[in-house]
Amino acid sequence: MTVVWLNGRLLSAEEARIDPADRGFTLGDGLFETIRVAGGTACHLARHLARLADSAALLGLPLPHDAAALAAAEALIAAQGCVEGVLRITLTRGTGARGVLPPVDAVPTLLMTLAPAPPPAGPVEAVIARVTRRNEHSPLSRVKSLNYLDSILARQEAATRGAGEALLLNSAGRLAESSVANLFIVRDGRLLTPPVTEGALPGIRRALILERGDASEAPLSVADLLGAGEAFLTNSLGVRPLLRVDGQIIGAGTVGPVTAALLKDIAAE
Amino acid sequence: MTVVWLNGRLLSAEEARIDPADRGFTLGDGLFETIRVAGGTACHLARHLARLADSAALLGLPLPHDAAALAAAEALIAAQGCVEGVLRITLTRGTGARGVLPPVDAVPTLLMTLAPAPPPAGPVEAVIARVTRRNEHSPLSRVKSLNYLDSILARQEAATRGAGEALLLNSAGRLAESSVANLFIVRDGRLLTPPVTEGALPGIRRALILERGDASEAPLSVADLLGAGEAFLTNSLGVRPLLRVDGQIIGAGTVGPVTAALLKDIAAE
Repeated sequence: MTVVWLNGRLLSAEEARIDPADRGFTLGDGLFETIRVAGGTACHLARHLARLADSAALLGLPLPHDAAALAAAEALIAAQGCVEGVLRITLTRGTGARGVLPPVDAVPTLLMTLAPAPPPAGPVEAVIARVTRRNEHSPLSRVKSLNYLDSILARQEAATRGAGEALLLNSAGRLAESSVANLFIVRDGRLLTPPVTEGALPGIRRALILERGDASEAPLSVADLLGAGEAFLTNSLGVRPLLRVDGQIIGAGTVGPVTAALLKDIAAE
Repeated sequence: MTVVWLNGRLLSAEEARIDPADRGFTLGDGLFETIRVAGGTACHLARHLARLADSAALLGLPLPHDAAALAAAEALIAAQGCVEGVLRITLTRGTGARGVLPPVDAVPTLLMTLAPAPPPAGPVEAVIARVTRRNEHSPLSRVKSLNYLDSILARQEAATRGAGEALLLNSAGRLAESSVANLFIVRDGRLLTPPVTEGALPGIRRALILERGDASEAPLSVADLLGAGEAFLTNSLGVRPLLRVDGQIIGAGTVGPVTAALLKDIAAE
């Protein structure tokens, strides 16, 4: 049986009901976090909850107490007997009458679900999305909101063009991130990733890499990427070597030494 | 009792259940239409369904047959005994496993709900949103998708600044629309509204006004608006005179003759 945690209760997935008037459903008025579960533990959970709290503050969305969310995640993982998997936390503004302005007495919906661990993600080929761009002028580009349609459109385009991922440009035509991951390139032995002001989500794995000290933020053009020695994509589920973009080979077209070392470090975490 | 129509069935609102795995809820992967009900009839329903079909095609989202949707809307209005109100049609991609790429075998969720008619919307004061901008580089700016957080943020800002509405600029700094309506200005007796390429939703009321022949599309700057003789906002629920923006009076600061004539025409429809 699949178990979910919804507003304080563990339920079977079949019992769990989202109200049709939930603003998460009607207006995408909410946030989520995707968290790797390894060895029965939600990885970097405190960081994810801190990001969720920051994002909730931006939306003016009341957030249940961190300690309660931590306990709920642990309870769900235990109830499901999950060892390796993916935990998703969804926080919405809860139900509301028709209208864009949130109700003053909003009671948030907090949902936690588990999914099976995805198969190990190997190297990937990407396209530069033509269908849409990421809006670095919106603070939503810096939060993991429920407004995911631009990423969906980009990913559909990638599939149509025979690639596994799509990179999104920002409105200035520079690289922001992929449909589900942050982008890093290696240039002269140094790691570079677009700053959040360019439309990049402040990813947890991205932050961990930046904190190691051998990486920095820099605006990146498509030419920077195509001329890079190596490139890879990061999210909370892992690191994927990026070997080809729009049909052009990046670097040697194989997993480079910097990417390989990073993959090894993460596997040893 | 409040009745809703969900996937082919009339239900009480309490019985209606959205699955926590519905992509409308998890990723904002869907669309909606807001339709005025007057005299027990959904106004311009065929136009709304045509826009919904166009938008669904953009998202690669299967749409139940128009005729079925028409019949469902009529059945819901009759079951609820609704004379004056607001019909909302929500179409999502339905449930899906974790991941951004839509499942190939998606079974859409189609929900129709009714809300009471809002009180008559009088003149309004707006601010120019500072918190976010509309992304004219995304085709989503031209569909009524579930990704409404930019509008929510703008409207929250308006409330904080003491105004009832917010106007959104596009990434080029020109006017796109308001949080829930299209913008028109009157200049030298002629109506002007931003083209959809500027980030304006192709609103149904906007189209009806453009088809009258005394209005045209033109990129509009903030200076154009502040220097206009009159300005008003339109959506499917009505027309609102826009009398003041960022504290500055538009035209004479009262409902102008062109706006008044339009309000009279609509009331007589």
